[in-house]
Amino acid sequence: MKIKLIKKAGTPPGTLVYTGVKTEGFEISVIDYDVANYKEFGTDKIEDVFPFKDSQTVTWINIIGLHRTDIVEAIGKNYNIHPLILEDILNVHQRPKIEYFDDYAFVVLNMLSYDEKSLTIESEQVSLILGQNYVITFQERNGDVFDVVRERIRNGKGIIKKNKADYLLYALTDVIVDNYFIVLETIGDEIENIEDSVILMPTNETAQSIHKLKRELIGIRKSIWPLREILTTVSREESSLIHKKTLVYFKDVYDHSIQVIDAVETFRDMVSGLLDIYLSSISQRMNEVMKVLTIISTIFIPLTFIAGVYGMNFKYMPELGWKWGYPVSLGVMLIIGISMVIFFRKKKWL
Amino acid sequence: MKIKLIKKAGTPPGTLVYTGVKTEGFEISVIDYDVANYKEFGTDKIEDVFPFKDSQTVTWINIIGLHRTDIVEAIGKNYNIHPLILEDILNVHQRPKIEYFDDYAFVVLNMLSYDEKSLTIESEQVSLILGQNYVITFQERNGDVFDVVRERIRNGKGIIKKNKADYLLYALTDVIVDNYFIVLETIGDEIENIEDSVILMPTNETAQSIHKLKRELIGIRKSIWPLREILTTVSREESSLIHKKTLVYFKDVYDHSIQVIDAVETFRDMVSGLLDIYLSSISQRMNEVMKVLTIISTIFIPLTFIAGVYGMNFKYMPELGWKWGYPVSLGVMLIIGISMVIFFRKKKWL
Amino acid sequence: MKIKLIKKAGTPPGTLVYTGVKTEGFEISVIDYDVANYKEFGTDKIEDVFPFKDSQTVTWINIIGLHRTDIVEAIGKNYNIHPLILEDILNVHQRPKIEYFDDYAFVVLNMLSYDEKSLTIESEQVSLILGQNYVITFQERNGDVFDVVRERIRNGKGIIKKNKADYLLYALTDVIVDNYFIVLETIGDEIENIEDSVILMPTNETAQSIHKLKRELIGIRKSIWPLREILTTVSREESSLIHKKTLVYFKDVYDHSIQVIDAVETFRDMVSGLLDIYLSSISQRMNEVMKVLTIISTIFIPLTFIAGVYGMNFKYMPELGWKWGYPVSLGVMLIIGISMVIFFRKKKWL
Amino acid sequence: MKIKLIKKAGTPPGTLVYTGVKTEGFEISVIDYDVANYKEFGTDKIEDVFPFKDSQTVTWINIIGLHRTDIVEAIGKNYNIHPLILEDILNVHQRPKIEYFDDYAFVVLNMLSYDEKSLTIESEQVSLILGQNYVITFQERNGDVFDVVRERIRNGKGIIKKNKADYLLYALTDVIVDNYFIVLETIGDEIENIEDSVILMPTNETAQSIHKLKRELIGIRKSIWPLREILTTVSREESSLIHKKTLVYFKDVYDHSIQVIDAVETFRDMVSGLLDIYLSSISQRMNEVMKVLTIISTIFIPLTFIAGVYGMNFKYMPELGWKWGYPVSLGVMLIIGISMVIFFRKKKWL
Amino acid sequence: MKIKLIKKAGTPPGTLVYTGVKTEGFEISVIDYDVANYKEFGTDKIEDVFPFKDSQTVTWINIIGLHRTDIVEAIGKNYNIHPLILEDILNVHQRPKIEYFDDYAFVVLNMLSYDEKSLTIESEQVSLILGQNYVITFQERNGDVFDVVRERIRNGKGIIKKNKADYLLYALTDVIVDNYFIVLETIGDEIENIEDSVILMPTNETAQSIHKLKRELIGIRKSIWPLREILTTVSREESSLIHKKTLVYFKDVYDHSIQVIDAVETFRDMVSGLLDIYLSSISQRMNEVMKVLTIISTIFIPLTFIAGVYGMNFKYMPELGWKWGYPVSLGVMLIIGISMVIFFRKKKWL
Repeated sequence: MKIKLIKKAGTPPGTLVYTGVKTEGFEISVIDYDVANYKEFGTDKIEDVFPFKDSQTVTWINIIGLHRTDIVEAIGKNYNIHPLILEDILNVHQRPKIEYFDDYAFVVLNMLSYDEKSLTIESEQVSLILGQNYVITFQERNGDVFDVVRERIRNGKGIIKKNKADYLLYALTDVIVDNYFIVLETIGDEIENIEDSVILMPTNETAQSIHKLKRELIGIRKSIWPLREILTTVSREESSLIHKKTLVYFKDVYDHSIQVIDAVETFRDMVSGLLDIYLSSISQRMNEVMKVLTIISTIFIPLTFIAGVYGMNFKYMPELGWKWGYPVSLGVMLIIGISMVIFFRKKKWL
Repeated sequence: MKIKLIKKAGTPPGTLVYTGVKTEGFEISVIDYDVANYKEFGTDKIEDVFPFKDSQTVTWINIIGLHRTDIVEAIGKNYNIHPLILEDILNVHQRPKIEYFDDYAFVVLNMLSYDEKSLTIESEQVSLILGQNYVITFQERNGDVFDVVRERIRNGKGIIKKNKADYLLYALTDVIVDNYFIVLETIGDEIENIEDSVILMPTNETAQSIHKLKRELIGIRKSIWPLREILTTVSREESSLIHKKTLVYFKDVYDHSIQVIDAVETFRDMVSGLLDIYLSSISQRMNEVMKVLTIISTIFIPLTFIAGVYGMNFKYMPELGWKWGYPVSLGVMLIIGISMVIFFRKKKWL
Repeated sequence: MKIKLIKKAGTPPGTLVYTGVKTEGFEISVIDYDVANYKEFGTDKIEDVFPFKDSQTVTWINIIGLHRTDIVEAIGKNYNIHPLILEDILNVHQRPKIEYFDDYAFVVLNMLSYDEKSLTIESEQVSLILGQNYVITFQERNGDVFDVVRERIRNGKGIIKKNKADYLLYALTDVIVDNYFIVLETIGDEIENIEDSVILMPTNETAQSIHKLKRELIGIRKSIWPLREILTTVSREESSLIHKKTLVYFKDVYDHSIQVIDAVETFRDMVSGLLDIYLSSISQRMNEVMKVLTIISTIFIPLTFIAGVYGMNFKYMPELGWKWGYPVSLGVMLIIGISMVIFFRKKKWL
Repeated sequence: MKIKLIKKAGTPPGTLVYTGVKTEGFEISVIDYDVANYKEFGTDKIEDVFPFKDSQTVTWINIIGLHRTDIVEAIGKNYNIHPLILEDILNVHQRPKIEYFDDYAFVVLNMLSYDEKSLTIESEQVSLILGQNYVITFQERNGDVFDVVRERIRNGKGIIKKNKADYLLYALTDVIVDNYFIVLETIGDEIENIEDSVILMPTNETAQSIHKLKRELIGIRKSIWPLREILTTVSREESSLIHKKTLVYFKDVYDHSIQVIDAVETFRDMVSGLLDIYLSSISQRMNEVMKVLTIISTIFIPLTFIAGVYGMNFKYMPELGWKWGYPVSLGVMLIIGISMVIFFRKKKWL
Repeated sequence: MKIKLIKKAGTPPGTLVYTGVKTEGFEISVIDYDVANYKEFGTDKIEDVFPFKDSQTVTWINIIGLHRTDIVEAIGKNYNIHPLILEDILNVHQRPKIEYFDDYAFVVLNMLSYDEKSLTIESEQVSLILGQNYVITFQERNGDVFDVVRERIRNGKGIIKKNKADYLLYALTDVIVDNYFIVLETIGDEIENIEDSVILMPTNETAQSIHKLKRELIGIRKSIWPLREILTTVSREESSLIHKKTLVYFKDVYDHSIQVIDAVETFRDMVSGLLDIYLSSISQRMNEVMKVLTIISTIFIPLTFIAGVYGMNFKYMPELGWKWGYPVSLGVMLIIGISMVIFFRKKKWL
């Protein structure tokens, strides 16, 4: 995961410029429901959405594709959203946060997904606006994570249709947080893979994988850590937007996000432990090799010396004339070699 | 201990699916008592339990085997438990926590046990529901840790029968926390074993043991750390469920859990110290070996050089013709060798 | 970035001495505006500025060049600024802070800029005084960072002209904080460069770059960390100087500064990870080299020994007389050499 | 210092079992005094003590030898102490703490002492009960640390006899905390010894000493850290047991305990610094040795090669026939050897 | 800086024994002033001082030489100081702190100075007692740091003479804190020196300097850290001793002490970075040397082997009889040597 900073030109506050990666797709989808009714349609004209503003039913407006800043501006005007909030929606790579206003609340979350192709974790900003009877969600790209909620509304499964907009906000937050578990499971599997390879066959690639994992966890942590704060704010702030009955559900998401944070911290601990074990394992291995090789040299060097001595050309070297000189010298060499091997074994060097 | 995450499908909140390892065993055991009476029976029909709900005696219902989600659901309906709580009971690998509701409290704890076979520490989720006159406990697998409490009720030992359901909750929490001491003692022994082997004979297995220990401690810490919070909540929260008289007992468990946390932190410090000493010890040992071997080579290389010189085939090499050439050259080699050994000794290299 | 301490002679408090690097330039520029009017002029006589003190329009006085302590003193007298504050303005290298007084507030910030020539990050103290209808800014050197705000006032772009002096303070703080993002982007790029070189070709320069980066981040952190505190103070303190309407803008700067702090912490984590990977990479590389070289020696040493044996001058060495002695001995050497290579390959040492 | 855990059988709370090391000695000593009177006696019948319970004089009952659980039980009954407190007195290796009850307070402290024989630091639990007119102290073993206080009461030195039981509690706490300074001084001396040996002659024993010191400090820290909390509680809690006049004395002990904690933290920092310097020193030394040895080999290997060349048996080697061949070849070798030494010196390798 | 502990004999609290290094000098100097008057004299009889106790002018009594415990005792009696405070004045090596009493406040600070001879940082305890109209300061040794304040009173420079005793306390605290900047600048310079030598020519002395610096910073930190707490207490505590008008000055000292603490933390970060870079630099250098030397051996070992082969004494070695055998063999050796050099270059090993 690349660490990204929000990009700020020196523009006056409230200037609406999309700072993310431009994509083709653009889509507005609307679901309007109460316990009895249900209506769903897609459009690309934002004006189609406005009539639902003051209806008593819950309206969920999902906007995909933030390059259409005109749409965001139109929503801002119609729903009376503060210009700085519109800027935050478009200046993606925001830190997750919640902000309360008189008649709406603004939530920024990061959606994480594991990209199978690049083997990296991608992060996408999701902005949510909660009004009295509506939730507006802004996504950079099309993703299927909200489909679960959509399906639940369609089928009337669960208690979602019996509740108000705040429960819808909860349901959307919940699927985003649940998604973190999937990403973390991938990380957990990767840690186990590396753990095996660190012990069996540590290579330079292992070190790089550990480093990459470390970076991913730094990035994930940055995305997830503020969640705690956000959900604490939700349960503390007294606001007419979130009913007391819904708080127990937000408490549940809070518990999950604590578990996610715990898991990230645990993974960080484990990854830094992996690096230690990797370094110790690699140096242990290298030392073993060097030791064996050095011992081989050490055994042959004295033998070569003896051979060198009898290779000298002195005239008067009595041993050279002996009949058994050659086999005896070979025998001596053999004995020296074997004693050295025995000595090294005894010292546990071999 | 494998780090496990709660598994969350995209199901609506309150969906009851057991996420742990499926086991065969299933058992409902009921103990009903007050200061004078005592009744104990096992059953596999949950309906047998319901009559005790409104009795004035204390009823302890212990359920083993969470794959029977129907049982959990039936209890939820009968005792009026929030669906999210039922989900938490079945979604094992929760973070330990306490939650207060109007007429009951919900506690999640982790039971740790040392598995002699796999030499690892296993963690099992235990959920407890405290009502006015009952405690319901949910266990994944059969364990004998609660037997102590059962025995105490049977024999009327201690003051347990004179007290209400809150004291029973305390007694159960207490045996779970006491159990941690046993697990930690195993860890403590293992640390001492490793400490000895690190100094006497450090091997690659030592490093792996240290790493394993580190992981175990990370896992234990994750299980134990939230205890502090839980027990602080118990003593702060004003609830009709826990009587003031029982608080001193919960304070005692609190003290124990602080000691457990302290011990875990201390062990973590010690284990990370062990890794340092291991690395220093292993490199010290390796260096000793390499030094001795290198010194042997260094002594013989100049001697071999001299032998090489007198192995040259120049026609006019006066020394070669000398009568004492050979013994003198051997003597010179001996002197050089001995002086080098003395020199290395003096330099404390040998 | 060199860590600089404020320099304090043993002078009595309130003594006005400029402690920064002396520069030639000196400039007073004044912008006076309200929603309808706009006036801008430069001067080098501070008296020209005083008439604006009690006007209802917003006056922004920007002073560049702190070696002119007489100017600071004159402003202090005219605007009734506490002598310790004047000292803080001149004793540059202050820790960023905010201080409230009865009729003005004093803010110290650090402006960071990346010096393309020395490849280091430079820090400059900017002091801001917010009165009811004026903002006075003090800069050490001329920089163009405030030009954006100036331009916005000139063109009446944004809502700056509709607001009071507190909004001007916000706008100036905002551009300073926005500037941090640019500096951090440079740091981020540098980290990526180093990351590549650490993996491809780690050299001693890489280590020094990492160390330099580490130092820069220590310095940046020191400049940025107090921002959080400052902006929390702004939103908590009830003061007539900052209107409630403006608080939401300061909240926005607060969010940005949290992001900056987050990024700095993340970068620190990443840089310390880089050092680990560098060390592991460098020792891995070195070990590879040493291993190959040692293996070459190890193969040739036994061969040289054999050659040495047949170089001995014993009279009775039957092999020497054999017709095939020479080719056979060469063959034996070849076989030994090849078996060793095969053995090392099998052991994965080669 | 061995890290010890409290041992908890699965016994019901309030079961009185001594968990420490059994010792022979058992002793009850009583001192009863007020400003005018003084009475001191030893006994082994606990009943002799009870008459003093309601006297207006201050009574200090010191009990040595916790294996006599009957004594503790009798005191508990007579002084109306909660069973959990009696359990805490006997379950030694408690975490230091203070607990307030209606008519008494319970304090657990750890007494540290340096054992000259085993060169380790021993820890002993001291439990203190403060009543309105009495202090009861429980010690595992006989120690002389309280003698100072005893002497002061006997001689009427200081203001101890003019004060109540709370001042006695202070005096006893004070001597325990003062004792920590003595232990820390021993640690401080040991650190300096190791510091010298790390620089002059680092051996494997040095590493083990550093490791041992680290462990001792972990243990001491565990004993001392809770002191801060205890003494903060004393000054905050409004209790009739401790008079306002005595609080300034407890503040003084508080200051000392902060100093002890500071010193322990400082020592930890220093010891971990020692390990760094040890590792760097040991590897520096080893490298020096290896470098010199490798240089010796490197110088002789090319020379041996030259000797090898002129040891070849080619028929037509003109140099071999030259009259000056031998001395010239020796000279060339000498020149090569010397140039290599010069080259290595210039490169600062030698 | 040696870490020193306060030395506590088992004496009753309030016993007056000086625990520092005994010095010869002893001196009492008195300055008495208000806005109009000024009187200064030295004495060695403490009685000369007492008449000033109830005067309306501000009296500053400076006592140098704490071995004269009788003087401290006399002051204690006359100014009604608590015995524990007198003990704190004499038991030097206290932790810096402030304590409020009914009619006086007690402040302990550490004065740091860089000793040019031993190249270490020395710490001296300065105790200050602030009464309604007087400040009494106790110093262990004569130092000139207070001269600046003395001069300011003499000359009537600054506003010191217009203010009360609390401003004098501020002025004295201020010069002590200012002094820290001088010490820190020395440390800063030393860090830069070491930084250069770490990169250019790291030696074992460099490691020791880094270690020494680390220790100094641990010591300085211990002296400076409590300052923050002290100055926060001053601004929070409502006391008649310190006027509201003076608080802004104490706020200024607070800011400076935060900067000092920041600088110490920054230096600690930098020094620990230095150790990393030192270790990497030293091992990099060593590796370079070893690599070059090993390559030299590796090149010559195969050549020596070839020479060995042609030194064999087989009867039938056709090459030996060839006319061009010798030059061809030399050529082959040359080619092998050069190809190895080229190969190593290509592999970037040389």
